[in-house]
Amino acid sequence: MRVNGKHYRTIWIAEDDPNTICIIDQRHLPHRFVIEHLTNVKMAWQAIRDMHVRGAGLIGATAGFGMHLAALDADNANFTADLVAAGEYLKGSRPTAKNLEWAVERILTEAGKVSSVAAKREIILKTASEIADEDASFCERIGMHGKAIIAEISKKKNGAPVNILTHCNAGWLAFVDYGSATAPIYAARDAGIDVHVWVDETRPWNQGAKLTAWELQQENVPNTLITDNAGGHIMQQGLVDLVIVGTDRTTHTGDVANKIGTYLKALAAKDNHIPFYVALPSSTIDWELDDGAEIPIEKRSGEEITKLSGLGENGEVTSVWLANKETKAENYSFDVTPARLITGLITERGITEANRAAIHKLFDK
Amino acid sequence: MRVNGKHYRTIWIAEDDPNTICIIDQRHLPHRFVIEHLTNVKMAWQAIRDMHVRGAGLIGATAGFGMHLAALDADNANFTADLVAAGEYLKGSRPTAKNLEWAVERILTEAGKVSSVAAKREIILKTASEIADEDASFCERIGMHGKAIIAEISKKKNGAPVNILTHCNAGWLAFVDYGSATAPIYAARDAGIDVHVWVDETRPWNQGAKLTAWELQQENVPNTLITDNAGGHIMQQGLVDLVIVGTDRTTHTGDVANKIGTYLKALAAKDNHIPFYVALPSSTIDWELDDGAEIPIEKRSGEEITKLSGLGENGEVTSVWLANKETKAENYSFDVTPARLITGLITERGITEANRAAIHKLFDK
Repeated sequence: MRVNGKHYRTIWIAEDDPNTICIIDQRHLPHRFVIEHLTNVKMAWQAIRDMHVRGAGLIGATAGFGMHLAALDADNANFTADLVAAGEYLKGSRPTAKNLEWAVERILTEAGKVSSVAAKREIILKTASEIADEDASFCERIGMHGKAIIAEISKKKNGAPVNILTHCNAGWLAFVDYGSATAPIYAARDAGIDVHVWVDETRPWNQGAKLTAWELQQENVPNTLITDNAGGHIMQQGLVDLVIVGTDRTTHTGDVANKIGTYLKALAAKDNHIPFYVALPSSTIDWELDDGAEIPIEKRSGEEITKLSGLGENGEVTSVWLANKETKAENYSFDVTPARLITGLITERGITEANRAAIHKLFDK
Repeated sequence: MRVNGKHYRTIWIAEDDPNTICIIDQRHLPHRFVIEHLTNVKMAWQAIRDMHVRGAGLIGATAGFGMHLAALDADNANFTADLVAAGEYLKGSRPTAKNLEWAVERILTEAGKVSSVAAKREIILKTASEIADEDASFCERIGMHGKAIIAEISKKKNGAPVNILTHCNAGWLAFVDYGSATAPIYAARDAGIDVHVWVDETRPWNQGAKLTAWELQQENVPNTLITDNAGGHIMQQGLVDLVIVGTDRTTHTGDVANKIGTYLKALAAKDNHIPFYVALPSSTIDWELDDGAEIPIEKRSGEEITKLSGLGENGEVTSVWLANKETKAENYSFDVTPARLITGLITERGITEANRAAIHKLFDK
C-alpha cells in the first residue's frame, strides 16, 4: 500500500544485498517513517519481540526471513541443528501468533527436502519469499471475498457510507500488504463503494491510533478514531453496520484469539444484531487446538500501560507516565472470542461459518 | 478519605473565609496534589466543565457551592433572577450528570422558601453544605449496604480475596467522601474482608489510572491497573467475582448512564455470570426519564483522545500526541447500560433490582 504516495510492502529484501532484510520500524509511526535493516536472526527476534513489526502475517513473514538470516550464519557442519535452534528461538519471541510457528515449521520442512547446505540455504530464501508473497496474495483474495459483504450492506443503505468498526491494526502494516481486516475495505473503496471506518485506539499499544488511522489516512479512506470504550455506544446508536477484525490465532473450531478487547466488541455486536466478521489467511488457523481457551495468551510488561510514548511539544518522540510509577498493572495482550459470537470468517478461500465442520470443508480437511 | 495519611474531603469551605470554596484540582493527580480556591460562580463552572472536579456527587456538591458563590455576587435588587441565571449557567457545564441539575434545583427551591436576600444567602450556604454532608453520608450508607454483597462472596470463597472490577472513578474523588462504587470496598476492608480491585484505566481521561489507582493506594487497598480492553478476558479467566460501578444518571426504570465503556463490561459480566452492581445516591436518579436512550450523552473534544498528559522524564507534567494531529477523533463520554444487564442498584436506602417497580418501592414513590 502507499506511504506518501509511494508503494511499500512491510518487509522486503534489500535491493543491493540479499543478506539484508528491510522492515518498517512501526514503533515510530505515525510520527516518523523509519526503515530498519535486519542482518541476523537476533535482530529478527528483537524486531518481533519488541514490536518493531507486529500483526499475524507480518510476524510470520519476519520469522521466515529470520530463518533465512539464521541460515546464512549457521555452521555448515551443524547446519540443521543450528537451524532448528534458531526456529525455537524465533518461536519464543511471541507466544500467541500462530503464523510465527507456522512459518518456522514451513521453512524447516522445505529445508529438509534437500541435502546440501547450499541447497538448503537457497530453498530457505525461496520459501521465505514465498511466505511473504503468499501472505500478500492471500490478503488480496480476502479483500475480494470480504468486499461482497460490504457491497451488500451498501446496496441496502442505497449507497450511503458503510460504517465499519475495526479493532487494533489488521491492516497492511500487520501483513505484507493489503491487510486482513482492511483488505475488504480497500477492495470496496477501489470498487467505488463509500466506506467509513471507526478505528478503536487499541490500548495499551494504541495500534489503532498510531497505525490503522495512519494507514487509512495514507490511502484516503475516511476514518474516525474512538476510544476502545466507545464501540458499544456507537453500536447502540446505529452508527456501525459491520465489524471486521483480524486474528493472531483461530482454532479449527472457530474460536478467535485477537488483540485484547476484541471479545468485548463481539459481545456488543451480538447485543445490537451487527455482523461480526474475522478476516484471516489460513496460515493463522491452528489445526490442533479444539478450544480457544487453550490458546496461550501473552502477558507483557505492565509499564506498557502506565507509561506512554507520543510526540512531545518539542517535536521529539517522548514518554510520559500516565499513572504513578508505583502502580501495579497487568498487561494481557489478547483475548479469545468464542465462535458463537462470530458471524463468519473471511479467508483467502472464501467466507465460512466459524465452526469445525464449515472450516474443515472450506479447507478440504 | 486519606491523602498521605491526612483526612480530606474533595470540597470544603475555607476555614478562614466562608466565601472561598476549596477543591482538589484532580487534573494534576496522581502526579501533584493541588488545592484550588473557588471565589466566584465562573470558577465553579470552569472547575466542572474542565474537570478540575468530576464524578456524580462532587459535580452536585460543586454546583451547590457554586450557587452559594453566585448568591454572594448576585444583585440585591435582582437577586432571584440572577440566581436562576446562575443555575442555568452551571447546568450548562456538563449535560449528563443528573446531580448537577438536582443540586441547582434544590438550592433554588430552598431559596424560594424565605423572603429577604440575607435570608436567601444564608439558606443557600446552609443547603450547599447540606448537599455535601448528605452526599458523604449517603455514600457511607451505600458502603454499609454494599459491604454485605462482598461479605457473602468472601464467605463462599472461604476468605480468599474478593476480586472486584470497577470502571472510571466512582471513588471518594467523585463524591464528597467514601465514593459510591468504592464505598462498599472501603467498608469491606474496614470489616477485615480481603479485597482486591481491578482498576480499568478508563480512556480517554484515564480516571482509573490517575484517580482510582491513586486513591486505593492512599488507602492501602490492593489494586491492579488494567486496560479497558482487558475486562472481558479476566472475567473469562475467573479472575473477577463482582463488578461495581458508579453512574452519572440512572432512570427510575433502572437504565444507567455511566462513563463510556461501562456497557461493554456489563455485557461481559452477563456473559460470564458475574454480578454487576451500580452504586448511587438517590440524587443521581432521574425520576422523569423512562428510557435510558433519552439521557443526553456528552461529546467532548477529540483532542482528549489524540493528546495525552502525564509525567515527563524531566519530572514535569507534559502532553504528547498519541495520534497524528490530523487524526479525526470522536469523543463520546458516556454510554447507557440497559437495566436488563444490571444485577442490582446499591443506594443509601439499600439494594434494589434495576426496575421501575422495585426502585419506586424503595424510595416510596
